[in-house]
Amino acid sequence: MLSPETLDTIVNRGVSEIISRDEFVRMLNSGRPLRLKMGFDPSRPDIHLGHVVGLRKLRQLQELGHQVILIVGDWTAQIGDPSGQSATRPMLTHEQVMENAQSYLRQFFKVVDEDRAQVVQQSEWFGKFTLADVIGLTGRFTVAQFLQRADFAQRFAEQRAIAITELLYPLLQAYDSVVIESDVEFGGTDQMFNLLVGRELQGMMGQTPQQCFMMPILVGTDGVQKMSKSLDNYVAVDERPEEMYGKIMSIGDSQIANYYELLTDLPASSLADLQRDLSQDSVNPMEHKKRLAWDITNQFHDPASADAAQAHFERVVQGRNLPDEMPELSLADLKEQADAPDGAIRADRLLVATGLAPSNAEARRLLTQGAVELLTATGGSSRLDDERAFVSPSAGDVLRAGRRRFVRFTG
Amino acid sequence: MLSPETLDTIVNRGVSEIISRDEFVRMLNSGRPLRLKMGFDPSRPDIHLGHVVGLRKLRQLQELGHQVILIVGDWTAQIGDPSGQSATRPMLTHEQVMENAQSYLRQFFKVVDEDRAQVVQQSEWFGKFTLADVIGLTGRFTVAQFLQRADFAQRFAEQRAIAITELLYPLLQAYDSVVIESDVEFGGTDQMFNLLVGRELQGMMGQTPQQCFMMPILVGTDGVQKMSKSLDNYVAVDERPEEMYGKIMSIGDSQIANYYELLTDLPASSLADLQRDLSQDSVNPMEHKKRLAWDITNQFHDPASADAAQAHFERVVQGRNLPDEMPELSLADLKEQADAPDGAIRADRLLVATGLAPSNAEARRLLTQGAVELLTATGGSSRLDDERAFVSPSAGDVLRAGRRRFVRFTG
Repeated sequence: MLSPETLDTIVNRGVSEIISRDEFVRMLNSGRPLRLKMGFDPSRPDIHLGHVVGLRKLRQLQELGHQVILIVGDWTAQIGDPSGQSATRPMLTHEQVMENAQSYLRQFFKVVDEDRAQVVQQSEWFGKFTLADVIGLTGRFTVAQFLQRADFAQRFAEQRAIAITELLYPLLQAYDSVVIESDVEFGGTDQMFNLLVGRELQGMMGQTPQQCFMMPILVGTDGVQKMSKSLDNYVAVDERPEEMYGKIMSIGDSQIANYYELLTDLPASSLADLQRDLSQDSVNPMEHKKRLAWDITNQFHDPASADAAQAHFERVVQGRNLPDEMPELSLADLKEQADAPDGAIRADRLLVATGLAPSNAEARRLLTQGAVELLTATGGSSRLDDERAFVSPSAGDVLRAGRRRFVRFTG
Repeated sequence: MLSPETLDTIVNRGVSEIISRDEFVRMLNSGRPLRLKMGFDPSRPDIHLGHVVGLRKLRQLQELGHQVILIVGDWTAQIGDPSGQSATRPMLTHEQVMENAQSYLRQFFKVVDEDRAQVVQQSEWFGKFTLADVIGLTGRFTVAQFLQRADFAQRFAEQRAIAITELLYPLLQAYDSVVIESDVEFGGTDQMFNLLVGRELQGMMGQTPQQCFMMPILVGTDGVQKMSKSLDNYVAVDERPEEMYGKIMSIGDSQIANYYELLTDLPASSLADLQRDLSQDSVNPMEHKKRLAWDITNQFHDPASADAAQAHFERVVQGRNLPDEMPELSLADLKEQADAPDGAIRADRLLVATGLAPSNAEARRLLTQGAVELLTATGGSSRLDDERAFVSPSAGDVLRAGRRRFVRFTG
């Protein structure tokens, strides 16, 4: 039997939903080493903190004696997971898949214990899969069941293409569970349907159905959307220490407690103290955020690198002697005035939009004088002196015009 | 170049639709021997006159030098063709498939010239089909395209199950066309969707798209529904001469010209004469029907057998000295009073329903006296003497009660 504290951490911290929680707890208490399945799509080889939430859960369970089975989805990646996607995706070649897998594993084992993990490739079983096997699998589920899945339903209703191949994706993922005899499969909340198909297929094929363990979605550094590479609001596990520290320092104050909960081992009692602390206006959240940034940087590097990153931040960013308070402008508001589809805006118009210059003429004067600078949240800076240059500020960046005029961009 | 008469027979007689007719005519006139594809589902090993319409078309084209490729659908039969079906069908074992194929071929070559035909099995290519092949195929079509097919659309709308496997059926059939490099594929009108998928896939894979040749549906001996084994309104090519002759004699007068057109070589000019003849009330259609029955019986047996079958019919059926005119009752009306789901009715209630007995008591009296007989259209007869026996009359059967009371059942 696990202690109540350990059990609480396992089933409540960094958990969105477990189907079924009761069965999972019984499995945990049985003393039997569990087979923890996680699949990964090698078309997406980069691991960021959003993924780390789940990897940390695997690590916690490894420390209790359980075994991780990582499935390299070299077959499903050729189809492209339609989960949560709004369009059919292009297929990858086998070479691309294998190259990406190598890169992924190097990052994966920064969190997960390699000694208690087994890596298998779908090609071990799908390489010899026959048409008869496909027929045996596809005969067990109906088109309607699959079209009920939220993303399929929406695409179907909007008459956007769903390739017949895409119906195979959940089936192949489910079959993986049968092959490796998975006890628990892990995924984001957008994986619920696929995880449940695995659970159902195992039952149909005489196995104990797996538990479906869904992790919450981590909000990115913009404080609004799911962390993802394509939204450029992510912190990669491969980030250099200064970049990693600086990016974490750019998250909004409202995300601090959440990041502590999902990405650190801060004990539950300290977490409660932190949340109470942050809810009081009198407290400056900067110190809490710096400890968070140090903690995470330390996890992926080492204490010395984390110290150095912190020193760099204090010298370059905090040393800029920016005022504690300054006008802010949300990137969403700025986007409405963008000059390009990607949200970029011309330097002269940026000055007017932020209120740092009263007119285009004044903006051009400031720019040609070399009086305008963009200070990034991670410590970098660049002078803006071309009025026609396109600029794309990120959350946490500060725009300076002359000595005393500043605007900070927020997510 | 074909003569206008020959071309007219090929593209107009026994044809429902050709996509595209112009391309097909150009192919015919090119002088190149064409590869004529017909697939057959070995879960349905019995050939009846409804299938013969298409087989005769193959035979006509063979006589012009073209080549028939018959595909034994040993893989698609394991799925079960959903075309025109309203429910998922059970799968066949490989043994059942091969047994049925042997029986089918024996019947098939009663019409088709074996010397200009090649028989291939899907297992020659699908036996080594891999998951990659399946992905390559399913990636080319969308779920929506397939759900537009009438039978799928209806089942989907009515929330009846469509197994994902069933979406594979048209794809596999289409792939057959690619493998054998089909020039023309033949099928019933309910096969249009599948034939067109083959045409499309060939084009996608760099081949000249096949022409889709659809044959009309033959009405069964009940004069109402498509000829089919399950509706018991069929004439099998394996039928003994007397049975075959008698069953053809049981068709309605309105079907005579149609049967001549689709199932005999009666020249177009004679066919026109026949149709004019039959449209005049003064003409007795019996002689035309007897020549038709003789012609078809001769096709599947020989002149002597056809003569003998005709003599049997004249002696046993016509020799019963039934009145030329007698009351008639449609099987549809009778079915409304049926006592069993299959349309059977109790002997005593049948007598009342047909008006041959005024009451159940009188019906029972007639039955126990041995005064009731069912005379089948094919020359058979059976005495009804058990009031509780269930009876299922067919079209053309006559029920006799006593010496002079008759009712004929019509389709």
